[in-house]
Amino acid sequence: MNGAESLVHTLLNAGIDTVFANPGTSEMHFVAALDRIPGMRCVLCLDESVVTGAADAYYRVTGKPAATLLHCGPGLANGLSNLHNARRAHSGIVNIVGDQANAHRPLDAPLTADVEGWAHPVSAFVRRTATALEVGVDAAAAIAAARAFPGQIATLILPADTAWNDGGVVAEAAPPAPAAAPAAAAIDEAAALLRNGKPTMLLLGGAAMRETPLGDAWRIAQAMGTKLLVERSPARLPRGRGRIAVERIPYPIDQGIAAFTGIAQLIMVNATDPVGFFAYPGKPGRLTPEGCVLHTLSTPGQDGAAALRALAERLEVPALEAPDPGPRLSPATGPVTPEGVAQSVGALMPEHAIIIDEAISFGRGFFPRTHAAPPHDWMMLTGGAIGAGIPMAVGAATAAPGRRVIALQADGSAMYSLPGLWTQARERLDVTTIILANRKYAILLGELAGVGANPGRTALDMMDLTNPALDWCHLAQGMGVPAARAATLDELNPLLVQSFATPGPFLIELVI
Amino acid sequence: MNGAESLVHTLLNAGIDTVFANPGTSEMHFVAALDRIPGMRCVLCLDESVVTGAADAYYRVTGKPAATLLHCGPGLANGLSNLHNARRAHSGIVNIVGDQANAHRPLDAPLTADVEGWAHPVSAFVRRTATALEVGVDAAAAIAAARAFPGQIATLILPADTAWNDGGVVAEAAPPAPAAAPAAAAIDEAAALLRNGKPTMLLLGGAAMRETPLGDAWRIAQAMGTKLLVERSPARLPRGRGRIAVERIPYPIDQGIAAFTGIAQLIMVNATDPVGFFAYPGKPGRLTPEGCVLHTLSTPGQDGAAALRALAERLEVPALEAPDPGPRLSPATGPVTPEGVAQSVGALMPEHAIIIDEAISFGRGFFPRTHAAPPHDWMMLTGGAIGAGIPMAVGAATAAPGRRVIALQADGSAMYSLPGLWTQARERLDVTTIILANRKYAILLGELAGVGANPGRTALDMMDLTNPALDWCHLAQGMGVPAARAATLDELNPLLVQSFATPGPFLIELVI
Repeated sequence: MNGAESLVHTLLNAGIDTVFANPGTSEMHFVAALDRIPGMRCVLCLDESVVTGAADAYYRVTGKPAATLLHCGPGLANGLSNLHNARRAHSGIVNIVGDQANAHRPLDAPLTADVEGWAHPVSAFVRRTATALEVGVDAAAAIAAARAFPGQIATLILPADTAWNDGGVVAEAAPPAPAAAPAAAAIDEAAALLRNGKPTMLLLGGAAMRETPLGDAWRIAQAMGTKLLVERSPARLPRGRGRIAVERIPYPIDQGIAAFTGIAQLIMVNATDPVGFFAYPGKPGRLTPEGCVLHTLSTPGQDGAAALRALAERLEVPALEAPDPGPRLSPATGPVTPEGVAQSVGALMPEHAIIIDEAISFGRGFFPRTHAAPPHDWMMLTGGAIGAGIPMAVGAATAAPGRRVIALQADGSAMYSLPGLWTQARERLDVTTIILANRKYAILLGELAGVGANPGRTALDMMDLTNPALDWCHLAQGMGVPAARAATLDELNPLLVQSFATPGPFLIELVI
Repeated sequence: MNGAESLVHTLLNAGIDTVFANPGTSEMHFVAALDRIPGMRCVLCLDESVVTGAADAYYRVTGKPAATLLHCGPGLANGLSNLHNARRAHSGIVNIVGDQANAHRPLDAPLTADVEGWAHPVSAFVRRTATALEVGVDAAAAIAAARAFPGQIATLILPADTAWNDGGVVAEAAPPAPAAAPAAAAIDEAAALLRNGKPTMLLLGGAAMRETPLGDAWRIAQAMGTKLLVERSPARLPRGRGRIAVERIPYPIDQGIAAFTGIAQLIMVNATDPVGFFAYPGKPGRLTPEGCVLHTLSTPGQDGAAALRALAERLEVPALEAPDPGPRLSPATGPVTPEGVAQSVGALMPEHAIIIDEAISFGRGFFPRTHAAPPHDWMMLTGGAIGAGIPMAVGAATAAPGRRVIALQADGSAMYSLPGLWTQARERLDVTTIILANRKYAILLGELAGVGANPGRTALDMMDLTNPALDWCHLAQGMGVPAARAATLDELNPLLVQSFATPGPFLIELVI
């Protein structure tokens, strides 16, 4: 058995059966091993940002790492920004980077680069395998690191000779690490805070944004009269009928600060101290008011669901059903507005859809009109590195056959990872992409105003995507994805109906 | 004057008047400063690989750094693979990365990342500016580093507050550093080696691949009976009528080794010890035979032209005109072959064209049929990080108005940086892109055979781009670039004629 074969067996033994791949020469023995050993689903991606964004979403949906296959330092580099997002989402990924053979590396051939240097900032685990004998144990260690709660990126660097040499030994990965128990004192303290009568907010993040802990948090909030918010950009938030309707921390700095105004105590459940997405001249960096008590009920690595359950019991909050969100709305009509898009999507989406939201500036008002939609999951851009949406749709649809993935996608951001559409076509993934084509970097126009600058010709030109206008129907068709254009909600609705009823990908250019 | 304004003035004072930009929120004051201060050409790119690939080619054409403008760590990350290529090309770039304000950085907002960690592997200079006061001097230091011979990447990290705060001071950059003189002893030794009668080769790289040193090297080779080769992937090689016709080190390992067979002495001029692009089981990593004497006439940082001139004088080699390459060939006809494509391009290209060659496997036979073409420059993928071609065409055409840029572009590689086509359309750049559409990762099929693997279904699927086939005319039109398809050389020729006669970009999907 060569090293590459021991790697494939070690992955499969640990239940890791999906690899998103953009291989090169140094990975040819790994590819050959995938040929010989059945059981691994190989999803070919035409650039590495698709590989890593897909692996991120795969984890968010399944709670199980996928493997990646990247080619040398530059291949890793192309995937780093979506690994950055994955790190912010606490997604577990077994990130495999093929590299020059060990003896060849000192010769500094053209593709040789500092793989470790690039990997460390996003990885909890980085290891370069030295020999074929060690590939199995190193892979097992990487798998264990990737599965450590709440999910981590483990980068395994695989020199070509360790893949092609004989002497591979299959290893067994440690089972997934459970979340650490919350501290009893933290629960005591939270109960005391909630009983002291001061204005309090519960802020939920990470793994505390699941159906059960959300329900417990909401019941605590109802009983104790506290506010309840979730992180600005949830990795995954269960929404729709039967789920608790919560709002996110708003993105614009003034709204973000306003959300915390008057709060004297913040109880964080798998969330961290809320801060502005950026700093702005003369405005605070922290969103909480001066003097606000910050209390960590559970860290992102702890079991927030258990913490909330214990806290609810301690406070003896009554059982309560989630409130009825009212009747499901009908599709909206007329000119395109954010609320109208949300209403139509909410009205027409099938049950258990997965929403990939990289709508950026256009997407801030999507939540209210989708509360009464069927149960669905909402997944957002966690790290702010745009270009995650199309790749995440690939990963989510790969992870959840039978569930419709709906990508609400800003046009400027979509340009960073277009080739993901090709993989959607190739794998016949059930993805409906709505390109929100405002033909500008709208968020930057807002930000430019936010920093007090008064844009002139040069600045406006730098935010303008009309010269020429991108033609998304052409771009999609070029990638093998059927597409159509809509300029009103009346034109959007039948396209949604048709796409949701038709297997495979479809793209709608929605001119906004 | 705020820090951003001091940065723009410092750049302009040093003659740096072109910025390739993909800005974000933290760069809004820089953008506003560009508004207020005339003189900087701002080229908007829709992803960062276009920014950095364009800056690389801009330097290769002009010998002068451009500035970049990137957004935070993930923006830098997206540009790293083309910075890797630029580093291998010895291209000077003032690589400006906007970042979180200094006070905001410790709060670990979502986009916060290890910018320095990602920058160091490609940068000779990395500095994070601390205050607005220091922006000017830090920028001047970055400019000096970028202009150090033979060109380096200097990364200047610009926290948002250092851009927006008042107190900026314009600074003056040190003038461009000249190449270091070659060592007299190295010239003596080379002369002795060339006179000892043993089989010898001159290998030229970097800045030694200019018209004058190439002529000197060729005259030495003629007089002393030595072989002459240039690096595998020249950053820029002057070619065509009146220039010396030289061949490159072949890419395939067996041909690479064969090129050096029988050589007892290798004299390297701004080149380094030739090694295989990758290692292969049972094959050597170095291309030179065991026992071959390696002699450095000049390092990449030294003046190889002066070294060759001195060596030619020492050896008293006679003046010789470059040999006549024979009559210019006519366009080729019939089915598409590499030689036929080269012949047609060579037959039809205008004078002083710039060829961007990311043809990969299809492009190995392009040189012989273009020797008799008009004078032109040939620029290749120096670092092996595919996806450089379309961005490099942007940078070369920006740098050289009036010269036609011809991009010979493999299809798989083109997928990494498609949005560069949009910038070509927006800036009305004179770029003719020929997509060599083999609809597969042809090089990997060769490499898989090279490592002795016998591909099965899974492996073949991972190298197959026919399911679905990419439609390049749709993709180009989606980006605003007119396009047409050709399946024979007879169809290619009139499209080349038409594009070369028409200002602005054009894309030809050549089905091969």
